[in-house]
Amino acid sequence: MTSNGTSDSVSQFDDATAVVGGGEGTITGRIHDGWDIGGNANGGYLLALAANGMRRIADRPDPVTVTAHYLSPGAPGDVSIAGEVVKRGKRFTTVSGAMFGDDRRIIQVLGTFGDLGGEAPRGLAVVHGTPPSLPPIEQCVLRSGNPALPTPLMDKLDVRLHPDHARYASGDPRTGVAEMAGWFSFADGRTIDTLALLLIADAFPPAVFNLDIPAGWVPTVEFTVHVRATPAPGPVSCVFRSRFVHGGMMEEDGEVWDGNGTLVALSRQLALLPR
Amino acid sequence: MTSNGTSDSVSQFDDATAVVGGGEGTITGRIHDGWDIGGNANGGYLLALAANGMRRIADRPDPVTVTAHYLSPGAPGDVSIAGEVVKRGKRFTTVSGAMFGDDRRIIQVLGTFGDLGGEAPRGLAVVHGTPPSLPPIEQCVLRSGNPALPTPLMDKLDVRLHPDHARYASGDPRTGVAEMAGWFSFADGRTIDTLALLLIADAFPPAVFNLDIPAGWVPTVEFTVHVRATPAPGPVSCVFRSRFVHGGMMEEDGEVWDGNGTLVALSRQLALLPR
Repeated sequence: MTSNGTSDSVSQFDDATAVVGGGEGTITGRIHDGWDIGGNANGGYLLALAANGMRRIADRPDPVTVTAHYLSPGAPGDVSIAGEVVKRGKRFTTVSGAMFGDDRRIIQVLGTFGDLGGEAPRGLAVVHGTPPSLPPIEQCVLRSGNPALPTPLMDKLDVRLHPDHARYASGDPRTGVAEMAGWFSFADGRTIDTLALLLIADAFPPAVFNLDIPAGWVPTVEFTVHVRATPAPGPVSCVFRSRFVHGGMMEEDGEVWDGNGTLVALSRQLALLPR
Repeated sequence: MTSNGTSDSVSQFDDATAVVGGGEGTITGRIHDGWDIGGNANGGYLLALAANGMRRIADRPDPVTVTAHYLSPGAPGDVSIAGEVVKRGKRFTTVSGAMFGDDRRIIQVLGTFGDLGGEAPRGLAVVHGTPPSLPPIEQCVLRSGNPALPTPLMDKLDVRLHPDHARYASGDPRTGVAEMAGWFSFADGRTIDTLALLLIADAFPPAVFNLDIPAGWVPTVEFTVHVRATPAPGPVSCVFRSRFVHGGMMEEDGEVWDGNGTLVALSRQLALLPR
């Protein structure tokens, strides 16, 4: 299941989401250092690690719809992943599970796994939506390695933001619209598969950074990703929007599109505003 | 927790979602006859029944974010609801649970419960979105009681569709856009509370009925509702859209707005197309 476009070594993402065990035994893995933003492991990374264990339990390769509730921060270190198959059907297997750190439960996950076949979707298609309108990758703003925003995660990811949406980081006037769009690749060239989509759907700066509101840590309560197809090779284009910021909460809706113009993932999260 | 605007009797919805037990004991309830469409109990009703049990386990009144995976049809009869508190925090309690029928698991649920205070949201609000543009209720088309579409559920609900969106039922040319908007009240005048929002978010005809594609049973795999505020008294306006129908799957996104123009719920489901 590993793939690496640049060398024979295991990709950083495969290394950081590796799990051992399965079948009747316990599944273990490790939250790797450097997949955090300000010390908190990224929520998409935590979900990808847990889902990598849970798809072993499901014995089906693709996370078709996965929901995580975030219970405590993911500190680097060993984790165990436990899950119960609550239904095994002809097409899908549903697993209820959790990932545990040393002394506490980090995330609770409910997922349905299937086999998307590794191909572009076929059959009926009625799509009212288009990939985000983005300049070519080389005209977008590389988020990785911005010295003003130490985000170890971003050294592993090649996230290139729409120039208008990157203004929050430069001090230029923000757009005033909670939209964040850009291109995503892995820095080491790893192929984007369905597991990686769980990371990607939480790998961009929050869309609300482009509003004129106080910035701050925005903890995720709940995060759901629908994986709709296996991405074609190459970078994906992504857009994230928050339309409803009120009552101390906000949603963030994401779309991930492959180079063939296929919507490959839809995501939504519920997050809290600072009180 | 019951409320009824028209009589002293218990409302139909309260009766159909009633549960007994809790604390250390088993929670039981009953899937009532007549909350189905073509014999399958409505998914929103099943989720409301399960969540009514789970909020007892959480000991917090409002389902802030609830996700259900649908495992087997809900036939009328006794059910038990089991759940584990996976985190009890200062503001929220997260419960992983399931609802079981006679011999099988009907739905698996992951929910975070809190207390929204029964008031309109306060504080920072940045909202880019508006309630659906609808004619007055009396100019919308009552779905209930349409003899061509026997849907027992609709006798209990006062669902009034935008006239353009109701054309799928009359044989007139459809809009060709997967959008379904309208007003919702309970037929017996029951107040719309946060539990009812779980039903409402799945109580409209599928938005894809307005596409020129073969109609058919569209089984839900996963359904998530974010309850963002306690609704003001009176009917709510709702809109449901499916933008991405491809690869044998579709999403349906819903918005529920109260009479004060507050977004009170956001929903999304992943459903399967007939193969």
